[in-house]
Amino acid sequence: MDKQQIFQKAKSWVLEAGKHIRENIGEPLHIETKSNPDDLVTQMDQDTEQFFADKIRTEYPEHRLFGEEGMGDDIFDLNGVVWIVDPIDGTMNFVHQQQNFAISVGVFEDGVGEIGIIYDVMNDNLYTAVRDEGAHLNGKLLPGLSVERPLKRSIFSLNTTWLLDENKRVDAKGIRELVKRLRSTRSYGSAALEFAYVAEGLLDGYVTMSLMPWDIAAGKVIVEEVGGVVTTGDGKPLSMLDRTSVCATRANIHEEVSTTYISLKEE
Amino acid sequence: MDKQQIFQKAKSWVLEAGKHIRENIGEPLHIETKSNPDDLVTQMDQDTEQFFADKIRTEYPEHRLFGEEGMGDDIFDLNGVVWIVDPIDGTMNFVHQQQNFAISVGVFEDGVGEIGIIYDVMNDNLYTAVRDEGAHLNGKLLPGLSVERPLKRSIFSLNTTWLLDENKRVDAKGIRELVKRLRSTRSYGSAALEFAYVAEGLLDGYVTMSLMPWDIAAGKVIVEEVGGVVTTGDGKPLSMLDRTSVCATRANIHEEVSTTYISLKEE
Repeated sequence: MDKQQIFQKAKSWVLEAGKHIRENIGEPLHIETKSNPDDLVTQMDQDTEQFFADKIRTEYPEHRLFGEEGMGDDIFDLNGVVWIVDPIDGTMNFVHQQQNFAISVGVFEDGVGEIGIIYDVMNDNLYTAVRDEGAHLNGKLLPGLSVERPLKRSIFSLNTTWLLDENKRVDAKGIRELVKRLRSTRSYGSAALEFAYVAEGLLDGYVTMSLMPWDIAAGKVIVEEVGGVVTTGDGKPLSMLDRTSVCATRANIHEEVSTTYISLKEE
Repeated sequence: MDKQQIFQKAKSWVLEAGKHIRENIGEPLHIETKSNPDDLVTQMDQDTEQFFADKIRTEYPEHRLFGEEGMGDDIFDLNGVVWIVDPIDGTMNFVHQQQNFAISVGVFEDGVGEIGIIYDVMNDNLYTAVRDEGAHLNGKLLPGLSVERPLKRSIFSLNTTWLLDENKRVDAKGIRELVKRLRSTRSYGSAALEFAYVAEGLLDGYVTMSLMPWDIAAGKVIVEEVGGVVTTGDGKPLSMLDRTSVCATRANIHEEVSTTYISLKEE
């Protein structure tokens, strides 16, 4: 595949889709009085995925699309070139905040992530990576995660859900122990943005237990491109076909986090 | 006091201090390689509070200043006009992220909050309120919290700390029950911004167990001005002199949250 050409196309489509969302989201502070925000996000999700489906089918008819909203293909393997798209990642933020959501586009070839694009639509921040060519924020090279911070000086994104014993996916006791070891935690409500913040160095790690491939695809490419490590919660290679747990951190703490603190429950 | 004149002065000082911080924070992505960020934030905290102390003493010699860094007065009561200032709220975000911190300025007269200003320095977002005159974001009137959302559709800011049994301030079991009832939680790492997000309607509530008056003063004025309710965790009036717990929410859910889910531990 012509990575540079596909990257330029993908980037322009993401920016165009984001502009369309911004123009149609309405007055942020008054959205609730004008329409049902749940309906609005569903419509925008579907419209945006359809936009990508039309573009990809016209420009690259041999590529396939794997998306949340079902406008793409039925994907059971990652042979050839597959676009993995979340048209609006962070739909709850979209509904409640009309901000802090992202368009996430990953392009994989034979299972290898080649391109990752995450667009923070309302803040107009574009995170991009092409494999082996570095990661960028708004065209500026991200310096990478060479700083080695121990856990006690690290900030992770981690949602309160995973500290509850009742959750179905992870031993909450281990996660609570992790919280005690960390300097602090944050939670932003968009997986794509949380990957982007790890890549940018705002966070030292992001741990979560239930993501779909379109939540992960772009983020994995971008975080790995700055030297971070992205695996399942228990340190195994990620599937890009099924629901999965995720542990995405700076390299120096990854093994400690995934082996000591994250104990997945049997499905 | 001449509220409008003091408000205009306070606003101009906040904007000037914020501009100074932005100009001196350095290249965000490279701060770690240039200096010890802990030293940098300490210096900026002190310089900014000194800036407010000088301005207030020159312009309003009869007013007093209550601030985190000790450049103000020894405050044991709230008689007269007291400025309650946090020069950099969210210092951990400042160190790790070089963003998502705020300048927080509350002006109280005989214990009543008259003016609140929270400035998200790096995003250049200014939240303001003058009592009985509404709250504004960047000069635009905030619509207020008239929407009544039940807990199951609410998003709260709530840090993972308060879900740990080992925390010294609140019964973690009650907080975990709250998490189960909520739609979701977030955590942003700056009390001032979390109050501002409640006022803006991005969050339906903010619950935390250990804040100082300068973390709260401006936020209380702003949230109350849009119709929100701000009390201690267990629903009592806030002290503006001592460390305290906080429950700041939309009006319709406040009693349920503070009485059902928050059980403070004895000091």
